[in-house]
Amino acid sequence: MDRNENEIDYVVKQAEAGFQFLQQTDVIERAELMYAIAAEIEELGEILIETAHLETALPLGRLQGEKARTVNQWRRYADAVRTGLYSEARIDRDPNGQFDLRKYNKGLGPVVVFGASNFPFAFSTAGGDTASAIGAGCSVIVKAHPAHLKTSQLMADAIDRAVSKQGVPTGVFNHVLSDSFAVGQQLVSHKQVKAVAFTGSFRGGKALFDLGQSRPEPIPVFAEMGSVNPVFILQDYLANHLEAFAKQYIGSLLLGVGQFCTNPGVLVGLAGEPFDRLKLALKSELKSAATGKMLHSCILDSYNRLKGEMVQSEGISVLGEGEGNTPHDFARAVLVETEASQVLNNPNLLEEVFGPFGLIVSCNDQNEMNLVMQQLDGQITLTFAATAQDIHECPALFAMAQDKCGRLLFQGMPTGVEVQYAMQHGGPYPATTDARFTSVGPDAVKRFVRPFSFQNWPNEFLPKELQDGNPLQIDRLVNQQWTKA
Amino acid sequence: MDRNENEIDYVVKQAEAGFQFLQQTDVIERAELMYAIAAEIEELGEILIETAHLETALPLGRLQGEKARTVNQWRRYADAVRTGLYSEARIDRDPNGQFDLRKYNKGLGPVVVFGASNFPFAFSTAGGDTASAIGAGCSVIVKAHPAHLKTSQLMADAIDRAVSKQGVPTGVFNHVLSDSFAVGQQLVSHKQVKAVAFTGSFRGGKALFDLGQSRPEPIPVFAEMGSVNPVFILQDYLANHLEAFAKQYIGSLLLGVGQFCTNPGVLVGLAGEPFDRLKLALKSELKSAATGKMLHSCILDSYNRLKGEMVQSEGISVLGEGEGNTPHDFARAVLVETEASQVLNNPNLLEEVFGPFGLIVSCNDQNEMNLVMQQLDGQITLTFAATAQDIHECPALFAMAQDKCGRLLFQGMPTGVEVQYAMQHGGPYPATTDARFTSVGPDAVKRFVRPFSFQNWPNEFLPKELQDGNPLQIDRLVNQQWTKA
Repeated sequence: MDRNENEIDYVVKQAEAGFQFLQQTDVIERAELMYAIAAEIEELGEILIETAHLETALPLGRLQGEKARTVNQWRRYADAVRTGLYSEARIDRDPNGQFDLRKYNKGLGPVVVFGASNFPFAFSTAGGDTASAIGAGCSVIVKAHPAHLKTSQLMADAIDRAVSKQGVPTGVFNHVLSDSFAVGQQLVSHKQVKAVAFTGSFRGGKALFDLGQSRPEPIPVFAEMGSVNPVFILQDYLANHLEAFAKQYIGSLLLGVGQFCTNPGVLVGLAGEPFDRLKLALKSELKSAATGKMLHSCILDSYNRLKGEMVQSEGISVLGEGEGNTPHDFARAVLVETEASQVLNNPNLLEEVFGPFGLIVSCNDQNEMNLVMQQLDGQITLTFAATAQDIHECPALFAMAQDKCGRLLFQGMPTGVEVQYAMQHGGPYPATTDARFTSVGPDAVKRFVRPFSFQNWPNEFLPKELQDGNPLQIDRLVNQQWTKA
Repeated sequence: MDRNENEIDYVVKQAEAGFQFLQQTDVIERAELMYAIAAEIEELGEILIETAHLETALPLGRLQGEKARTVNQWRRYADAVRTGLYSEARIDRDPNGQFDLRKYNKGLGPVVVFGASNFPFAFSTAGGDTASAIGAGCSVIVKAHPAHLKTSQLMADAIDRAVSKQGVPTGVFNHVLSDSFAVGQQLVSHKQVKAVAFTGSFRGGKALFDLGQSRPEPIPVFAEMGSVNPVFILQDYLANHLEAFAKQYIGSLLLGVGQFCTNPGVLVGLAGEPFDRLKLALKSELKSAATGKMLHSCILDSYNRLKGEMVQSEGISVLGEGEGNTPHDFARAVLVETEASQVLNNPNLLEEVFGPFGLIVSCNDQNEMNLVMQQLDGQITLTFAATAQDIHECPALFAMAQDKCGRLLFQGMPTGVEVQYAMQHGGPYPATTDARFTSVGPDAVKRFVRPFSFQNWPNEFLPKELQDGNPLQIDRLVNQQWTKA
């Protein structure tokens, strides 16, 4: 259903009123709202899980886990907001009374959030972007993901109940049900919208980014657009962990039918007998592995199309396929292989195929492996399947990796994104549109705040975060010293 | 002189090497470099002041003060970097050993800095943008401001001496002397450049911003583009401070021949007898005030042109002019006046005239004053010449002001920007291209860092900021607690 501009304008005006209300709240009041939202989501029963299962084909167990994660996100982000970590209160008083400067972070304004297809709870209507925007003091307009509208509506209802119980204006949270791309464009283009958060494809994210930058007033558009999350397997590690690594890699590649932005879609190693044995082990692991139904038939179509293009690219050969009993609407997993020289000639081979698709790249020597690293675009993650000895022997590879990603793993697999302060879920373009921010972990709040200074204001007019006596008992940098005093 | 692309490419390659070196430094090593640069600038003698005086026409006393400020900036920013404030180290360890996540902020990459005309020391070659980029761990390429190339070269030589004494690669700091706009474009467009800082006109800043966003890889472009810094004078204050305010306002308007981005170019008040008396007092203050020579004949030409356009706009009349003995190359200060209704019909009247130009806006009632506030674009500062009683009586005006600026003053004047943690020098577009950052104060460093997570890495490969035992003794958020342990 399309909305006309009056309807869009009405929603944004509601959101503006919600923002004006949130501007007057302090961090403790916002945390209370977030805890209330967490509680309402927690209380959603089987109907949520069943609805999401029908709309996304994700397994019940995974959805139960994602629901718990979503509730946890609201609580962890609220905990962080409550401490004043993102208020970054600073007070500088001139000893001679010339100035009294007080700065804190406030919300940017109404934020438009685009839900993701692959996380119907944790990165959709009630997901991390919504939680971090509200934590920042911004009202939110969610454009629900068209692939799971009913699930989104259940989540929106839960948030609305919390909003109502807390006596907060409804404009704090706004939910737009639409499968129209134009509606998204209208929202991003609206004068009173001040930021955008998006998780999804490069094409979708880049289009919104360009729209946001070309408005009369450009606005921050944080788009997380995925990546191929390359894994570099090095010689000492390979010699001793071949079988275990093969299991782990295929497990990660097929997790959630490969529908994660941290899916390890590229594996790079040195040609030779051990790497050949690894390939056989991977082929064998893949053959017996279970496959599954993708989120949506459009995603399956897109997977099959991109997979087909890859398979037919010059220099690519199929190493193995998942051969389990595969209904026609399941995705068939594929591992393909190529030489580093092919990748160096054709960077398109390093583009993401969203789904259970892996590309194995053989390098003739360390120098070629370094060149493959250099060829990489920005990634959300990079993984070294390596020992300490390997890293000592490949200093250039290790150094370059730090220019290429947001999170660098030593052993393990990139899937499984912990919601922690120390998590960086982002990375250089085109993984995201701004490497300076994360979309997972409480630090995601930072995307939506801006600093604001009061100079020489009487105490009574200051926000509580900056008042004398520190009524909220948050950490503040006062005359260059951290204190709660 | 124009540079060909090979020359640009050479400079950027040098900067890339400098960045790779800085990536391996810790915050204490970078602070040492910054202290060394401060010392070299401090040692620059009369030749610096005299050269700058000849190139900019700024008075010797002002230049002495600006030099001290510049040295202070390097030291204050270094102090802040050294404490780890901008490293934002976070460590999360799973009690069950499932993950060990460690995040810190590292430099974005080579940063291109465009010097400002009006601060030949503090916002030019060795200014705050350069200091904050180096503090962030980024190498710098300064495109020196063409209006003061010799001054810039003296500053660049000082930085080079510090770089050499510290045994740091020369690519850490790079200086491009050119008056070509194309050279700036080539630098901003270069693949290996990762951020841009600019201080200057809206036209220049917006052009660089658009260039940065339309690159194959978009990059952050922080442009501080000035504003009119409106002052709202309210009734209770006006009744008791008329004469003093008139002196203060004209003093601020003419300071530095009006060549500050915080120059209070618009004054808004309620029509009536007190406001009429204020206008007379302003006219009389202006008449007797000294004027001065502008930074450059181009700036004077531009001032005269924009002033002429304003004076001839519909509904504008001249209230008074500076009538001192004014050489032909001095700027003549002007105060013009208009009705709020004119401003509401023609927003162009609220555009900046860089120089000693003030527009006085009379409102018929409080509602009209609110509408003028609403009409404003984003500003670096807004000032209330008000008493607490005034603020209580104008809650809507006070609330709206917080959406419109980066720094809000109670009494006083916006000129005089303190280099403090609590300073916000920025504001909503078009004051800057990203309201989430400041270009004055140590927090300016934040523009040039990005978070980076290490997952499960052996201690020996971690940067010192994240190592066990906290060898740099910085504040870190470990398992959700701030600690130096």
